[in-house]
Amino acid sequence: MGKTAAIIIIGDEILSGKVQESNSFFIAKELRSHGINLCRISIIPDSTDEIAEDVRKYSEKFDYVFTSGGIGPTHDDITIESISKAFNVKPVINNTLKELLEKRHPNLSPEQLKMAEVPEGAELVNDGTLSFPLIKFKNIFIFPGIPEFLRKKFFAIVKLFNEPLILLKKVYLNEYESSIAPILSDILKKYKDIKIGSYPVVNNSEYTVMVTIESLDETALNSALANLLERLPKEKIVRIEE
Amino acid sequence: MGKTAAIIIIGDEILSGKVQESNSFFIAKELRSHGINLCRISIIPDSTDEIAEDVRKYSEKFDYVFTSGGIGPTHDDITIESISKAFNVKPVINNTLKELLEKRHPNLSPEQLKMAEVPEGAELVNDGTLSFPLIKFKNIFIFPGIPEFLRKKFFAIVKLFNEPLILLKKVYLNEYESSIAPILSDILKKYKDIKIGSYPVVNNSEYTVMVTIESLDETALNSALANLLERLPKEKIVRIEE
Repeated sequence: MGKTAAIIIIGDEILSGKVQESNSFFIAKELRSHGINLCRISIIPDSTDEIAEDVRKYSEKFDYVFTSGGIGPTHDDITIESISKAFNVKPVINNTLKELLEKRHPNLSPEQLKMAEVPEGAELVNDGTLSFPLIKFKNIFIFPGIPEFLRKKFFAIVKLFNEPLILLKKVYLNEYESSIAPILSDILKKYKDIKIGSYPVVNNSEYTVMVTIESLDETALNSALANLLERLPKEKIVRIEE
Repeated sequence: MGKTAAIIIIGDEILSGKVQESNSFFIAKELRSHGINLCRISIIPDSTDEIAEDVRKYSEKFDYVFTSGGIGPTHDDITIESISKAFNVKPVINNTLKELLEKRHPNLSPEQLKMAEVPEGAELVNDGTLSFPLIKFKNIFIFPGIPEFLRKKFFAIVKLFNEPLILLKKVYLNEYESSIAPILSDILKKYKDIKIGSYPVVNNSEYTVMVTIESLDETALNSALANLLERLPKEKIVRIEE
């Protein structure tokens, strides 16, 4: 199923429930529509050892790693230092980044200069739309935690991912999940190249369960969908979303 | 800093960006206000091996583990089976749960009966407010993924956590984060029993950065706050939230 990825969200403020995190949902949606299989999201504290451990492990296990957070100027911004530690390289000042920062702040404080640090050997990625490039080290894309900046940087690199699209259909139903479970199991046995999910909701006046069918193979997807619709009582089907 | 916890969110639908997850933010806020130190949130797929590995690792490392998702009647609901596997016990039918399900559905299908399964040795937790009890195995609280049910079950067990409260103050500022970074570093050196965070926002007309100070010790917290306010230019302070 195509390339694999993991997301590492870094920040004490999320673990303590002070800030609601939205970057992982944004990246997850984007990766799905670009055919990349997101395998894990980890939300971890501002701790050098934990960042280093996860980054090293996921960089080896998955095709792409996306980190979010911890690259600002303050004492708890330790992502660059931690990634460097994970791979036994030094954090070094990148001259391109330093010059960009000097244009904004003619006399850089040590805190501001810190934002020019990268793990030694990192590349800068810029499609021309970014005023401050994205830092990439090995297969790790190092994003800021601020959602607006993360999105802008993500859109600038998205063309790097040229994977086949994963197709998705959603069927919204008014039915008990347990009543349709045997039908779903059955369809899953019959069609090998699809994935089925079923997601009940409560307190929703429109539907009680959303069923999803996914596949890289359009023919398999359409056959499975047709088979599902055939076997469901017509009056229980609320709508189908393509 | 009190007891520790981890959250494991289980579900392919979240990793594929089909559903936005909100349970971890809810639990994170609740744990913080009850003085429990949330150390990690993992969002993982419907995979027996991955659920088993994380559950085993976190159960050993942290005081509490909260899982969300994968306990419904469908083919991809494998949380009970995976937790059982992690600890080399069998999934068994719990008679209390079975009787509750039989009251709802007089002829239980195999899919419905699955919802009465627990890892052998599990306890049921109910403070009297739940129509279907929470399943607890060792230090693992096994929650449903549906947010309304998770919340109801969480509130039913919250009295089990009698930890000292972590106190929090938030200061909203109109200032560059890099300008206040040296002040924050300095305060952090001076007061040992506090934690400081600084969280910039963009596109917000009210403030540009939120600074948080946390402590178990009210005196340390108030001294650090007073010191911070003294050192900040008055006109940059938007408001203080207690």
